[in-house]
Amino acid sequence: MQSARLTKPVKALRRYVPILEWGRTYDRGMAGNDLVAAVVVTIMLIPQSLAYALLAGLPAQMGIYASIAPIILYAIFGTSRALAVGPVAVVSLMTAAAVGNIAVQGTPEYIAAAITLAFLSGLFLVALGVFRLGFLANFLSHPVIAGFIIASGIIIAASQLSHILGISASGHNLWELLVSIAKNINTINLPTLVIGGAATAFLFWVRWALKPALLKTGMASRMADIFAKAGPVFAVVITTLATWLFSLPDAGVAVVGDVPQGLPPLTLPSFSLDLWSSLMGSAILISIIGFVESVSVAQTLAARKRQRINPDQELVGLGMANIGGAFSGGYPVTGGFARSVVNFDAGAETPAAGAYTAVGLLLASLFLTPLLFFLPKAALAATIIVAVLSLVDFSVLGRTWRYSKADFAAVSATILATLGLGVEIGVMLGVVLSVVIHLYKTSKPHMAIVGQVPETEHYRNVLRHQVRTNPEILSLRVDESLYFANARYLEDQLYDMVARRPELKHVILMCPAVNAIDMSALESLEAINERLNALGVKFHLSEIKGPVMDRLKKTDFLDHLTGKVFLSQHQAVCDLGGGKNSTAA
Amino acid sequence: MQSARLTKPVKALRRYVPILEWGRTYDRGMAGNDLVAAVVVTIMLIPQSLAYALLAGLPAQMGIYASIAPIILYAIFGTSRALAVGPVAVVSLMTAAAVGNIAVQGTPEYIAAAITLAFLSGLFLVALGVFRLGFLANFLSHPVIAGFIIASGIIIAASQLSHILGISASGHNLWELLVSIAKNINTINLPTLVIGGAATAFLFWVRWALKPALLKTGMASRMADIFAKAGPVFAVVITTLATWLFSLPDAGVAVVGDVPQGLPPLTLPSFSLDLWSSLMGSAILISIIGFVESVSVAQTLAARKRQRINPDQELVGLGMANIGGAFSGGYPVTGGFARSVVNFDAGAETPAAGAYTAVGLLLASLFLTPLLFFLPKAALAATIIVAVLSLVDFSVLGRTWRYSKADFAAVSATILATLGLGVEIGVMLGVVLSVVIHLYKTSKPHMAIVGQVPETEHYRNVLRHQVRTNPEILSLRVDESLYFANARYLEDQLYDMVARRPELKHVILMCPAVNAIDMSALESLEAINERLNALGVKFHLSEIKGPVMDRLKKTDFLDHLTGKVFLSQHQAVCDLGGGKNSTAA
Repeated sequence: MQSARLTKPVKALRRYVPILEWGRTYDRGMAGNDLVAAVVVTIMLIPQSLAYALLAGLPAQMGIYASIAPIILYAIFGTSRALAVGPVAVVSLMTAAAVGNIAVQGTPEYIAAAITLAFLSGLFLVALGVFRLGFLANFLSHPVIAGFIIASGIIIAASQLSHILGISASGHNLWELLVSIAKNINTINLPTLVIGGAATAFLFWVRWALKPALLKTGMASRMADIFAKAGPVFAVVITTLATWLFSLPDAGVAVVGDVPQGLPPLTLPSFSLDLWSSLMGSAILISIIGFVESVSVAQTLAARKRQRINPDQELVGLGMANIGGAFSGGYPVTGGFARSVVNFDAGAETPAAGAYTAVGLLLASLFLTPLLFFLPKAALAATIIVAVLSLVDFSVLGRTWRYSKADFAAVSATILATLGLGVEIGVMLGVVLSVVIHLYKTSKPHMAIVGQVPETEHYRNVLRHQVRTNPEILSLRVDESLYFANARYLEDQLYDMVARRPELKHVILMCPAVNAIDMSALESLEAINERLNALGVKFHLSEIKGPVMDRLKKTDFLDHLTGKVFLSQHQAVCDLGGGKNSTAA
Repeated sequence: MQSARLTKPVKALRRYVPILEWGRTYDRGMAGNDLVAAVVVTIMLIPQSLAYALLAGLPAQMGIYASIAPIILYAIFGTSRALAVGPVAVVSLMTAAAVGNIAVQGTPEYIAAAITLAFLSGLFLVALGVFRLGFLANFLSHPVIAGFIIASGIIIAASQLSHILGISASGHNLWELLVSIAKNINTINLPTLVIGGAATAFLFWVRWALKPALLKTGMASRMADIFAKAGPVFAVVITTLATWLFSLPDAGVAVVGDVPQGLPPLTLPSFSLDLWSSLMGSAILISIIGFVESVSVAQTLAARKRQRINPDQELVGLGMANIGGAFSGGYPVTGGFARSVVNFDAGAETPAAGAYTAVGLLLASLFLTPLLFFLPKAALAATIIVAVLSLVDFSVLGRTWRYSKADFAAVSATILATLGLGVEIGVMLGVVLSVVIHLYKTSKPHMAIVGQVPETEHYRNVLRHQVRTNPEILSLRVDESLYFANARYLEDQLYDMVARRPELKHVILMCPAVNAIDMSALESLEAINERLNALGVKFHLSEIKGPVMDRLKKTDFLDHLTGKVFLSQHQAVCDLGGGKNSTAA
């Protein structure tokens, strides 16, 4: 009895703390693989973390801080074995947009707001996970996400352009950014442009030409990949050395400057209700976008090894990561695509690889930060530009155009709204559009008047097939579940058909594709039944699915039905048609 | 050629101006019937129009003005032959809520805002009609509308209670109203209470006891109905006489007072963009609620005579009515249930009955208004209370509870939000909830692993039937269209099933109930195909519907599919199972 009583809480604990599950089988072989992956990822993450912090408008070291506690917390609470959590481009951009509405970059208020944003986002994610509301993220359709990522990539690249040019520019949408850049174009700093331009060119070369070159030398594909991904590290080291050697800051080249050396600080999110209410909307958007991205990365990697992730538990993992970030000088984070793939390719086997990465970053934060003084911001901007331009893949436009104009409209509107009005409005519009378009499509369902294919028991569309019909019987097949958005359309169409057929005595609604009937549709069916009755027309149903029928039996609809419910359409027509001759339509 | 060229514009004109259609066959018999109906409706409308104007916080005569031009314009542009347009209870309440946010009752700004609200609502309705966007109204599910009407009825009754008591009270939700009444309860005016109480009691008696009594005397049911509906006219006449005879205004009984005598004034809506932007949201809500109510009345009446209405043209008709109202001293109107039923029962055959009613009201506004001086507001409040309490029908709660807990949740939330937070928030919350609940229900679709019923070609759920399965083949049937809200769920579930079956070689997705596959779902299928391929599992489809297949053929999905597309599940299992023995599950 004792053990049985213990089992349940232990299982529940394991559900919420997956480390208790995989930790039991952790061995030395796995630890070795995890360590190798951690070293590779740490080296890659240092420049990336600094760069994304600057993109978010925050001090560079916050990017490193945001990678330490969150990685450890995700390792404890997350379910993906290879996901690497930390600052990512799109979430950093959204952070800049959200916090920029409230405070000025460079002020303590700005930093406090970013920390609070991570905290709120974490709370929201944990709440979604605990209440198993992860399905809400599904309201973002794939095309809307694709459009949003494309537009965000363009905005990010445009925002970094000013760092490459050495001018100051700001704005939360493409238009504002371009106007701002155009205004200040006369203040270009040449040394900055040289460093930034060279770094960008080098990184493009690394990304598109280095890997094929390494492969030709006979290097293994996985190693070549890791080398190519380390490109930003070379760029950062070389531009830092050049800046230091030639005293470029005196020539106007902006550098990262003093970065405090030491452990991540203990920080507290603000508990001001005013701040909470002005950040809550942004926190929700950031959480959902971050979650969607992260889950799709985690799912891709898990599937490669026949592993499973648990989306609701992923919410808890990401939420705890963000809450942890808020208490250790970080800002909103999520599972990143590039870092996770590197982690996976470098052989990470368990979330422990993430913990080792955290140790690596901790060491960097303790000992490497003085070396960052001469790191030019232009070099970091170059790493961002090259990283995000790979997100800008317009092929989704062509694919949706060919497949579905409705999806095409949703993508285009999301891209235009994000570019023109900013990330938050863009993504909200995308969600609303996805939903409206879906409701629109199902609000005018495909319906067909059907007749009997001669000498068979099959009933097909009278417009497409040579079939027999009886002028006293109207057989209508509906190819969609019936619910509030299409209930009135069914009524409209049916009354229309009935008004045109004075001889009519029976209407048979054929429901083989009706997966559900909600209360609105039930009321429409009741209204149809009643109105047809007033006209002396009987209303019948055929081929209703089991679960739908179970539900109808709970109501008095079937008692009031003037006609019958038939198992098959053929039986209905035989019963009702009686001895009458059918006519070929 | 000439005539052929003319036909198209003439047809288009007839589509937008239905009077050109029915006007051609109008004869003396129809005119006689229409005239009788008009007289009955006019008598009923006078007290009703005054009362609803007061409910909207407007001068009483605006209720009459709002019935004149709109009725005529609807007669020209509307498609229902019996619908009577004018002020109605719920729209009047919504007008008070919308305009009350902007101006103080009794000021010229308040009146101007109400007129502008009618104009904006009219523009919006016409735009919806011209662009055929009437389907948007379908986003309001029946239960949400039912809940909204119940809660509005309660709020309206509570708001009129203060007139019966002779105290002043205000508020836009039930709580505010009750608190306000409680505060002023010590200022009750006894003569007002006597008049209001007596009128209320009389009207309840008329409504629930007079008709049965008349029927007993042998009167025809239709006539008895009309007599019972005329109850408010008697109440108004008698209380007005009593108030005049006993000089009750001196005793503190509030009366309608001076009502200007004459034609409806020519008014202009405001063209202030500030006012427009603060009223636009309310105008949209009022339009949609008004349209939904009106269309359902029109459809009920049209069906009784096998006539048809055109919902998109109804939008134009109602829109023109509201625009007309805005230029003639009116406020937002729609097709009312009570007045339309009276019109229909009294024998109205064409929209001309409405035009005659307008003439009747015009005469009333020219000659009868001085008689309204002594009409006590308490009597009007009594007519409103008795009218709206018939809207308060809680049976929808029981019906939805039994049929669908999701619909029950939507109704309850709409009622509570409307009562507690006011009509605008209530209805918006209801819409959002309907959509979220629908998406939630379809986001976790019913799926079943199926196996072969021995000795047949049928495939059924392995959990419900004794069926044969093959450990190398997983047959999964999905009972829902695939779209963004359930695409990831399908992925999750499928990866789960695959992870648990190491022997698996084939997955067959059986799609007889999949009515559509959107771009998100297509991408999920592509991901599934790719990931299963990485695991050495082939992915097949069976029983895809024609329209879905047509669409898939436009993409390269089928080229990349590792498996095949089978016409029937049985064929798929035969092909893939080969000579292997199946095992009974």
